[in-house]
Amino acid sequence: MQEEKPGVGIVGAGLVGCLAALAFAAKGYSVSLFELRPDPSTIPQKQKNFRSINLAVSDRGIRALRYVDEEMASRVLENVIPMYGRMIHDLKGNQESQNYGLFGESINSIDRSYLNDLLLDEIKRNDYININFNYKLSNVDNLNSHPTLTFQDENSELKTYEFDYVVGADGAHSQFRYQMQKSMRMNFSQEYVDMQYLELSIPAKNDAGEFHYSPNHLHIWPRHDFMLIALANKEGSFTVTFFSPWKIIESFQNKDEWLAFFTENFPDAVKLIGEEELKEAFDKNPRGSLMQVGVYPYHHPSGRAILIGDAAHSMVPFYGQGMNCGFEDVRVLMELIESQAGDTSAAFRKYSEERHEDLKSICKLAMDNYHEMSSKVTSKWFLMRKKIDYALGKLGNGKYFQWIPMYTMISFRGDIPYSKAVAIEERQAKILGRIEIGTLALVLGVGLAKALHHIRK
Amino acid sequence: MQEEKPGVGIVGAGLVGCLAALAFAAKGYSVSLFELRPDPSTIPQKQKNFRSINLAVSDRGIRALRYVDEEMASRVLENVIPMYGRMIHDLKGNQESQNYGLFGESINSIDRSYLNDLLLDEIKRNDYININFNYKLSNVDNLNSHPTLTFQDENSELKTYEFDYVVGADGAHSQFRYQMQKSMRMNFSQEYVDMQYLELSIPAKNDAGEFHYSPNHLHIWPRHDFMLIALANKEGSFTVTFFSPWKIIESFQNKDEWLAFFTENFPDAVKLIGEEELKEAFDKNPRGSLMQVGVYPYHHPSGRAILIGDAAHSMVPFYGQGMNCGFEDVRVLMELIESQAGDTSAAFRKYSEERHEDLKSICKLAMDNYHEMSSKVTSKWFLMRKKIDYALGKLGNGKYFQWIPMYTMISFRGDIPYSKAVAIEERQAKILGRIEIGTLALVLGVGLAKALHHIRK
Repeated sequence: MQEEKPGVGIVGAGLVGCLAALAFAAKGYSVSLFELRPDPSTIPQKQKNFRSINLAVSDRGIRALRYVDEEMASRVLENVIPMYGRMIHDLKGNQESQNYGLFGESINSIDRSYLNDLLLDEIKRNDYININFNYKLSNVDNLNSHPTLTFQDENSELKTYEFDYVVGADGAHSQFRYQMQKSMRMNFSQEYVDMQYLELSIPAKNDAGEFHYSPNHLHIWPRHDFMLIALANKEGSFTVTFFSPWKIIESFQNKDEWLAFFTENFPDAVKLIGEEELKEAFDKNPRGSLMQVGVYPYHHPSGRAILIGDAAHSMVPFYGQGMNCGFEDVRVLMELIESQAGDTSAAFRKYSEERHEDLKSICKLAMDNYHEMSSKVTSKWFLMRKKIDYALGKLGNGKYFQWIPMYTMISFRGDIPYSKAVAIEERQAKILGRIEIGTLALVLGVGLAKALHHIRK
Repeated sequence: MQEEKPGVGIVGAGLVGCLAALAFAAKGYSVSLFELRPDPSTIPQKQKNFRSINLAVSDRGIRALRYVDEEMASRVLENVIPMYGRMIHDLKGNQESQNYGLFGESINSIDRSYLNDLLLDEIKRNDYININFNYKLSNVDNLNSHPTLTFQDENSELKTYEFDYVVGADGAHSQFRYQMQKSMRMNFSQEYVDMQYLELSIPAKNDAGEFHYSPNHLHIWPRHDFMLIALANKEGSFTVTFFSPWKIIESFQNKDEWLAFFTENFPDAVKLIGEEELKEAFDKNPRGSLMQVGVYPYHHPSGRAILIGDAAHSMVPFYGQGMNCGFEDVRVLMELIESQAGDTSAAFRKYSEERHEDLKSICKLAMDNYHEMSSKVTSKWFLMRKKIDYALGKLGNGKYFQWIPMYTMISFRGDIPYSKAVAIEERQAKILGRIEIGTLALVLGVGLAKALHHIRK
């Protein structure tokens, strides 16, 4: 007699929910996936309502994709645009490139909805996953024994399903989490960052799909309190995002003031975005707010439910780790199921214990990185320090000593947990500080010697 | 032509919601009050499901009651039991009294449901308030212009009402707050404290309603990690509450282990509670968890909605300020409506700005006071410091210098905002520290002089 597969209900068919569905199916679970929105394949491209900020997939995300399915990971990577560094745009329109990696590594621009569609296609082909769109979660019950999920379907009918385990992957405003909180003691915080974002676009240079700027960089116009960034799309365009405190965008009385502000601060970008388009965007384009969410623990004490992705740890986008971290959640959880010999409940419990410090670390790093992107990248002192850091990184390959720049650890070394990266960086920063003092002393010494020599003459 | 009264919808007819209803009605608003639970007057006394922990009403609560209605405040105070100090019970059953006030002030034990009933009676007599029981809030909409509240009534029918302003006073797990969060950027945190409480009872000594212990003290059995407290009721009994980390209560395998633990740590109390009653309580009595909730801001940006009481700031019960602070919310809000010349929206906005530091302060103080109640009250050093503090308090009446002990500021001086009390206490603590060092030096000096004298002889 064949053993019955344990049933898993996953709420949310965004990026993380989809990867989790594929991962559980690959581990021999019978998976049901539920999504509030309609099937994107039934919607004309233009009307797609998915958040459209481009994503940068890097090592942690790729590792998780590979863990679940090597071939699928390869298909994803065929459709990315590698970005090898930042391109800093100053007020005069000058551009300066700063590499991300020591050895030509890249983070990779990809369209969110393209990636989501690709994962959904995999899911529809998978016999062990059934997917349900237009399902609005209304209740999560019976978490202490056999959890049930109750949904309102598109005809407003209530439907209830029973599972062995349930997973909440329904994003920052998770309804699953809200339901779960009713039957457990879950610490929870949500904090809005005083910052809005507004999406803009730079079209392709011509019908041949040529780019106005290098497609292989993440473009930044760092202006301290606010900034503009741009990531390349496949067809020659750039998705542009303006980040600023709310008070800046709310201070403009009309579209002309907004255009004047943009022209003053981003003259080269305005030419490419277009003045009319900019003015239109002021009224029409959605402005988003940025929020950090933290919870603890991630699992229900019964070991029957768990939160992953943004539902567990929504972070600001400034380290490009939101999706990568959510994908890593899936890999870490699956590896725990392996190491707990298939005891799902034990794995859920261990996940909270082992994952918490890493998630706290990356949420904090993401916030801190705003300062680096918007300001520090223009500081001579920062660039000098970075040069030493990278020089040490090239030498410190573990033969004589080990040295890994922070950006490398976070974006290209998914084998180093976030919290460990923070610990390593703290040690390295101390040493860097000493090197700087040493260098400074040396420079002063040489200067002094020269001066004395001059006096003696 | 008479001007129409602005309409206020208040969700939650607990203590704070009731006082808010009376306060708004007194200010000329037309008030609708909605409560999830049935009318307590329709429920036999025995089945009442209200939380039954006794409350200690002190100056801030009394001020707010008086602000709303002097006569009502007098009626409340007729039915309290004054507590002039703590009574510390040691392991041998010895009792030692520690005064709360400098001049015989008291905090006042009162039964929660008695107080709630009294406020509800006032409301039912008030022509400007209509109250609706068995109304379950399902939606808060249209907050940007004329807010609507939608409820499910006892027949599961949906009913929607429109108001000029809406107030959420529906407690720590506020549904109003959850709804409000959907249309604004509200920072929010909830943190469970690793502590449970279990309620017990000491019956009256005899039919004449005599007390086993002094009714005019708050009794504490401080045992560091855990403690027992007892507050007197009118009819000669005590409501007893056991506080401990979850792991302690979960470590008992059976009722006998629980009884043995109690007998070892609270021998005098066990005799009065009764061994059988204690064993029964282990299974039957509800165990509560303690949670802190913080939000910011308290108002909706439209100026049409506000959160007060536990919905805005649920705190642990260790300073006896939960209700007092909630009542103070109402007084502060009403005074702002006055100072804003009746501009309710302006008052709501100003409330967030002006009240936030005070609410943060009292939530922190409440948490810190657990340590004082469970441990410090047994420390000689703490008691010595307290003696100096109180001696200075008696002298420092402002004629030559000003000195007010912290407990006095919080519990007996509602004219001092919480955050100001914290600032004053910081200054006083520094001075106390210096006095202690001075005293120590003096004692050492005298000792040294004596010793020298002895050597010379």
